[in-house]
Amino acid sequence: MNILFVGDIFGSAGRHIVREHLPHVVETNSVDLLVINGENAAGGFGITPSLAEEIFDMGAHVITTGNHIWDKREIFEYMTVPAESHERGRRVLRPANYAVGTPGFGVYQGELPSGQSYAVLNLQGRVFMSSCDDPFRKADELINKLTAKVILLDIHAETTSEKVALGWYLDGRVTAVVGTHTHIPTADARVLPGGTAFISDVGMSGPYDSVIGVETELVLNRFLTGMPGKFEAAKGNPKMCAVLIGCDGGTGRAHSIQHLMLGE
Amino acid sequence: MNILFVGDIFGSAGRHIVREHLPHVVETNSVDLLVINGENAAGGFGITPSLAEEIFDMGAHVITTGNHIWDKREIFEYMTVPAESHERGRRVLRPANYAVGTPGFGVYQGELPSGQSYAVLNLQGRVFMSSCDDPFRKADELINKLTAKVILLDIHAETTSEKVALGWYLDGRVTAVVGTHTHIPTADARVLPGGTAFISDVGMSGPYDSVIGVETELVLNRFLTGMPGKFEAAKGNPKMCAVLIGCDGGTGRAHSIQHLMLGE
Amino acid sequence: MNILFVGDIFGSAGRHIVREHLPHVVETNSVDLLVINGENAAGGFGITPSLAEEIFDMGAHVITTGNHIWDKREIFEYMTVPAESHERGRRVLRPANYAVGTPGFGVYQGELPSGQSYAVLNLQGRVFMSSCDDPFRKADELINKLTAKVILLDIHAETTSEKVALGWYLDGRVTAVVGTHTHIPTADARVLPGGTAFISDVGMSGPYDSVIGVETELVLNRFLTGMPGKFEAAKGNPKMCAVLIGCDGGTGRAHSIQHLMLGE
Amino acid sequence: MNILFVGDIFGSAGRHIVREHLPHVVETNSVDLLVINGENAAGGFGITPSLAEEIFDMGAHVITTGNHIWDKREIFEYMTVPAESHERGRRVLRPANYAVGTPGFGVYQGELPSGQSYAVLNLQGRVFMSSCDDPFRKADELINKLTAKVILLDIHAETTSEKVALGWYLDGRVTAVVGTHTHIPTADARVLPGGTAFISDVGMSGPYDSVIGVETELVLNRFLTGMPGKFEAAKGNPKMCAVLIGCDGGTGRAHSIQHLMLGE
Ligand SMILES: [Fe+2]
Ligand SMILES: [Fe+2]
Ligand SMILES: [Fe+2]
Ligand SMILES: [Fe+2]
Ligand SMILES: [Fe+2]
Ligand SMILES: [Fe+2]
Ligand SMILES: [Fe+2]
Ligand SMILES: [Fe+2]
Repeated sequence: MNILFVGDIFGSAGRHIVREHLPHVVETNSVDLLVINGENAAGGFGITPSLAEEIFDMGAHVITTGNHIWDKREIFEYMTVPAESHERGRRVLRPANYAVGTPGFGVYQGELPSGQSYAVLNLQGRVFMSSCDDPFRKADELINKLTAKVILLDIHAETTSEKVALGWYLDGRVTAVVGTHTHIPTADARVLPGGTAFISDVGMSGPYDSVIGVETELVLNRFLTGMPGKFEAAKGNPKMCAVLIGCDGGTGRAHSIQHLMLGE
Repeated sequence: MNILFVGDIFGSAGRHIVREHLPHVVETNSVDLLVINGENAAGGFGITPSLAEEIFDMGAHVITTGNHIWDKREIFEYMTVPAESHERGRRVLRPANYAVGTPGFGVYQGELPSGQSYAVLNLQGRVFMSSCDDPFRKADELINKLTAKVILLDIHAETTSEKVALGWYLDGRVTAVVGTHTHIPTADARVLPGGTAFISDVGMSGPYDSVIGVETELVLNRFLTGMPGKFEAAKGNPKMCAVLIGCDGGTGRAHSIQHLMLGE
Repeated sequence: MNILFVGDIFGSAGRHIVREHLPHVVETNSVDLLVINGENAAGGFGITPSLAEEIFDMGAHVITTGNHIWDKREIFEYMTVPAESHERGRRVLRPANYAVGTPGFGVYQGELPSGQSYAVLNLQGRVFMSSCDDPFRKADELINKLTAKVILLDIHAETTSEKVALGWYLDGRVTAVVGTHTHIPTADARVLPGGTAFISDVGMSGPYDSVIGVETELVLNRFLTGMPGKFEAAKGNPKMCAVLIGCDGGTGRAHSIQHLMLGE
Repeated sequence: MNILFVGDIFGSAGRHIVREHLPHVVETNSVDLLVINGENAAGGFGITPSLAEEIFDMGAHVITTGNHIWDKREIFEYMTVPAESHERGRRVLRPANYAVGTPGFGVYQGELPSGQSYAVLNLQGRVFMSSCDDPFRKADELINKLTAKVILLDIHAETTSEKVALGWYLDGRVTAVVGTHTHIPTADARVLPGGTAFISDVGMSGPYDSVIGVETELVLNRFLTGMPGKFEAAKGNPKMCAVLIGCDGGTGRAHSIQHLMLGE
């Protein structure tokens, strides 16, 4: 069974490059399950219902997110659906370790047309990020409730230490732990000894002639002066970053993980 | 002209894997200038004079470091040498943007046996790190004083945004901006349009069956309980991470950068 | 009913000044319940079993702590007692919102000789501090389980915003919310409209010719150079900082809070 | 000579309470020099030219600020005046240790009608705040250039440690070091041995039935859910917080500091 996970779509450049590459990548690699992180789809800041629809139309089964999830308020209502629903709004996840009572959900279990069941989890790290619940214990709690064997976890976190630690912690219990948030892909994709595919960061799908998606001049100005200024999404040098994970649908154990970085 | 930069040597596993691979990498690639980050050489925490000697004996022209530089106090005196000296203690750098009056130096300009002059700079980021002086302006200040055209900068920083921003800021003014500190290599090595080779993080040279070099169980225990406990360097799955940079010795502009990750 | 809460005892200077003033303060004010924060009793860093005994011998019913609780490892075992115990080790609290499985307890309910029942809670803030569980929801959870009406909460936190917010959140549900950790007393003691006594920070009981308890020169050196160096407890100008809270033993509502700062 | 320093004016409630009390406080105490922190004058977020005019009309000689200085962009141009000017725009300060090239100034030296010269400095802390230049060395640099003996420094910082350390560092070199930013007054006002008046935080001049000025419900919602939401200035229980400093106009040494907290 093949899973494709696409890193944070950043702005229109990100959406375009993903739309360009996705069909052939999915077909060439017989992708069964497609998960896309969409937290930066709306000009770099959040995601709207119509952009979520656009990403689902590209074939995504589930959209994961991260700290930018609430940047666009229209998404609140879209994500406010019953827990047992399978509609699209239910399949836009926010980190599962956000406070109890937060809109939306952080885990989704579904079934592919083939009858193969799968689950997607979304968690956020705590080091150098806003306070949220313990991602390690939240992972334990949620995984124990799942019946699916194929489980993909998007850990949206700042530091390599927290992401790598979570990978080892869950090794053998989930199919893949893929990191997002730093917007730069890491070169450490591997299958851990227990059969969990891991990468510290998939990297964004967006304009790489930028500072993590934003126009370079604007970010440099912020670093150099500390003064406010609107951050605009860059356009140059778009790349789609993703990982392709091969796993056994019966056991959920991964046998391969390959990083892809595709440009124009 | 060829430059090899080796990422943070972590503990004895890091020292051994670098010693194993360095001779053939240096020879195969006709490396002219060898710079090694040694901030974690001493069991993961700092560097001692004897370990610095060991790294110089491996052929390093300059040793860069980062936030762990003062973990071993013996290094203070070793680095306390005249600014105009070229002895080994002078060639162990600490970030140049540490406070005025801090022991040691953050920039070194030297000459290779061929007569080729070169400079190495070491800076530390400020985002999610201890306070230090502005790395952007410190870079400007130091680069303006150098006569060497071949300039390698090790930016020791936590976030991709600060490292990427510094790369763009210095594009065309230095030969290479190489990131360190996260201990995980990134997959974004490239030559920027102005001729500066860049990578967000070279990755450590150390045991990758670990959490950024430390025994996994010890770090997991810290994440899970918040309780103190000694951090011990791991041993498993050592890899040497480095970047090989090709540049023009006359202009200092880079034409290539290649990431290497070499295991047992 | 009168409650005296004494702020973080810092080193030997703190222990001496508290021992000097406690008897007359307790007697003059007919103190019924005495709670002391002891997280810095051991030279500024943690607390040992023998120092805990010393503080209990001064008359403390309960010792609260904070982020320094694990600095001295001997305290782990001392605090490892059955939940239903009332022995001294059970009455040294660590923040209740530390991870599940952490040694010790964060809440204690007891009874005074008069038959009056009371409870003491200890929580830690999350803003600019190590990750821990949500103090707001943890407070809800614990308070709901208590049968005592007189409830004192020590919120050990960095920022005024988090402490003030918790005070308003619990107003009318606990007797007092007293802040600790910054080591400087605030001038905002008041009874909130619902009957909860509040102060953002009680201030330490320790040497005020210092930087939050530590020898000034050592801290200045750290600020000026960023270099490591042992932090030693200062001795000069010791003061005992405390709040005296008057409340109704039946309802648990406070009617007064007064800050005390007593020197030599 | 008498100096009155008024803590961060927060929103309209802050402006009204200050306008109400200022005349009698100034008259009763024969205030010669009046300095007001105005960083939150505009609904809690920044200051506009017209609000600056309003505060100058109340009699302020100088307005200090802090991290909120750039919240309202209109203030940029107002503060863009020649360094040698004495007009009102020149007397709105932003922290002096902001990056070189930032609009405005962080130090002002002027003369009272009596001929008494004075200077006001504004600095920002670095611990748990955005990166800026070293406030300790920036203080050294600026103080050395001043000819005035009467020097008031507003240190806008988060932690007690950094503010207290700066107080000791400058003891005997400036008339007063007064802290701002936490919006809660501290109870540690004193004249240090060298003759520098010190307080860790003056506290805001604003609505104290709030969380540091903002409507309690809005802040609680943020703490409880992590979700965005506009922060509105509260109105209830306004207090003016200030310190009255007595000093020798000739030597600049302080002999007294008294905290004032005046409500309706
Ligand atoms: Fe993102
Ligand atoms: Fe993110
Ligand atoms: Fe390192
Ligand atoms: Fe480092
Ligand atoms: Fe503390
Ligand atoms: Fe403390
Ligand atoms: Fe303020
Ligand atoms: Fe502020």
